[in-house]
Amino acid sequence: MSELKNDRFLRALMRESVDVTPVWMMRQAGRYLPEYRETRAKAGGIIELFRSPQLACEVTLQPLDRYPLDAAILFSDILTVPDAMGLGLYFETGEGPRFQNPVRTDADVDRLPIVNPERDLPYVIDAVKTIRAELNGRVPLIGFSGSPWTLATYMIEGSSSKNYHYIKTMMYDKPELLHQLLSKLATSVTAYLNAQIEAGAQAVQIFDTWGGILSGHAYQAFSLAYMKKIVEGLITQREGRTVPIILFTKNGGQWLESIAASGCHCVGLDWTTNIGDARKRLDGRVALQGNMDPAVLYASPQAIRSEVARLLESYGSGVGHVFNLGHGITPGVDPKNAGVFIDAVHELSAQYHA
Amino acid sequence: MSELKNDRFLRALMRESVDVTPVWMMRQAGRYLPEYRETRAKAGGIIELFRSPQLACEVTLQPLDRYPLDAAILFSDILTVPDAMGLGLYFETGEGPRFQNPVRTDADVDRLPIVNPERDLPYVIDAVKTIRAELNGRVPLIGFSGSPWTLATYMIEGSSSKNYHYIKTMMYDKPELLHQLLSKLATSVTAYLNAQIEAGAQAVQIFDTWGGILSGHAYQAFSLAYMKKIVEGLITQREGRTVPIILFTKNGGQWLESIAASGCHCVGLDWTTNIGDARKRLDGRVALQGNMDPAVLYASPQAIRSEVARLLESYGSGVGHVFNLGHGITPGVDPKNAGVFIDAVHELSAQYHA
Repeated sequence: MSELKNDRFLRALMRESVDVTPVWMMRQAGRYLPEYRETRAKAGGIIELFRSPQLACEVTLQPLDRYPLDAAILFSDILTVPDAMGLGLYFETGEGPRFQNPVRTDADVDRLPIVNPERDLPYVIDAVKTIRAELNGRVPLIGFSGSPWTLATYMIEGSSSKNYHYIKTMMYDKPELLHQLLSKLATSVTAYLNAQIEAGAQAVQIFDTWGGILSGHAYQAFSLAYMKKIVEGLITQREGRTVPIILFTKNGGQWLESIAASGCHCVGLDWTTNIGDARKRLDGRVALQGNMDPAVLYASPQAIRSEVARLLESYGSGVGHVFNLGHGITPGVDPKNAGVFIDAVHELSAQYHA
Repeated sequence: MSELKNDRFLRALMRESVDVTPVWMMRQAGRYLPEYRETRAKAGGIIELFRSPQLACEVTLQPLDRYPLDAAILFSDILTVPDAMGLGLYFETGEGPRFQNPVRTDADVDRLPIVNPERDLPYVIDAVKTIRAELNGRVPLIGFSGSPWTLATYMIEGSSSKNYHYIKTMMYDKPELLHQLLSKLATSVTAYLNAQIEAGAQAVQIFDTWGGILSGHAYQAFSLAYMKKIVEGLITQREGRTVPIILFTKNGGQWLESIAASGCHCVGLDWTTNIGDARKRLDGRVALQGNMDPAVLYASPQAIRSEVARLLESYGSGVGHVFNLGHGITPGVDPKNAGVFIDAVHELSAQYHA
């Protein structure tokens, strides 16, 4: 593996000193970029795109060719694991992901296999290897997975959902059945992330997009407990470095202390949490990632710079901050504005690392 | 006005002693009830339903005829105020509310009138009077409005929204224009709630359904500041009693201290916040309303009773709790389960008021 030319991102995750605050964007390889839309159209659809290691590599690198980002993130879908379990992932235009075979009964849960990533998801592993080779040490590569709870919401509902009727009914009426499903997912996700790490991922992020629809009580038992199991099962060292783990629970701002106690290296914040307050609450136990409202990128360059300045000031001086949006960049953003954002982070953060 | 036979709800809001914890449900007059669906079909649609004082009264009372609820809430729509401002409210089947004339420009904001409820919303005022007469003192009647921020999201987006492109662009690029709109809304909502109080509403709730999509910083400036203005402008006493004010911000769990400092009497909690923790944080400064996950009502009677017990124990003994769901009851709930819930609150809470 070639030497890493920019390790700001990994250093910040480990709370080591950096020259400027590193920055990347959730969904940085995404629909706001015309070159992404072109590659996706060429591929024929999103499934064809993430199943092709070559095309997944191409779109992973697209934002890096435009912007001085400090990390790349594997282009893939969060639902590859349930798809590999036999649920039959497909996409309806404008409707988001769906499964042909949602999980509803004891028998459905029973028959779900544990995923073997090398056998069942070779296209992801190949994509990680291809991207890592193509990156050639420019920046670190982030691997990722959905959290067991978040994957389970799609698996049980069969699609995205408004009221989470099926999974919540199962949670309140048959908690043991849901625990059985989540255990299988935690084992599968651990293997999946470890396979990504062995293939070259230098940090990993677990996306808990739907943990925030739970009561605090249920979040601990049905989401965080399984992320903690994954954290405990991950490869800790590769290529002479720690492989840092980022946990991101959207709408998890009330539970930061317990997320930080999971053993992760960094807690991802959505934009509703004040990052300065979060830093005080966690008192240096972990790094923080975030957390500008993605909608700021709809606004003028001046407004973008001003929000970046406000967030940098809120975090304050010293180690442990990876700048990011508080959620994925949205399709309606002008790519120029993403550039303004990234440049502003680098330019305005230097004073906090003097 | 006839004497109030059950004042548990008003007493709990004022942190006075009660025999059992009072309970009502957000959207208790709603689609989960077959008799509601029948009245709505008879009316021809939701707009016809809430514009008819007689039919609004009929559906307001329906849940009270089924369950021993401790409060009635005016049946209306949160978008009556923008509709009265000339935006042209309509509903697309399965799509939620829309406006013919969304507010996007300086001129759009300039031309918006302040609402005069007696002139512009007589059907709401008449509904309050009719319901109050029909209630005949059974339980108190709650009036309500959407918060200025929440109303503004619909007014500017023109419909419900995923990314809030237009309002957030305005907020970051033209904050003064948005403040101008929110000021007009605060003045209008104050007049609207005062007219409801004068017509007989004995408590009022402000629904800030979308405050939780803001950063803490923006929440204070663009949502809470205007709710505070409304609180300061409301009639405080009627019929020899305080008219208590409930503020409910969905996903506002991180900001409870500042919501409680608004001058309101009660803070509504969604189900993601631990009510015992919230009580400690607010230390008796206000009452708390909430906060069972509405999805518990999909589950078995046993699971419902167990969650009610857990929440009552979390709140603990003493004054200041109005039981409710953490959000509106959903259309898929079996009405029998709502009955199990309400009975469980009364039965299991007596021990906490001994």
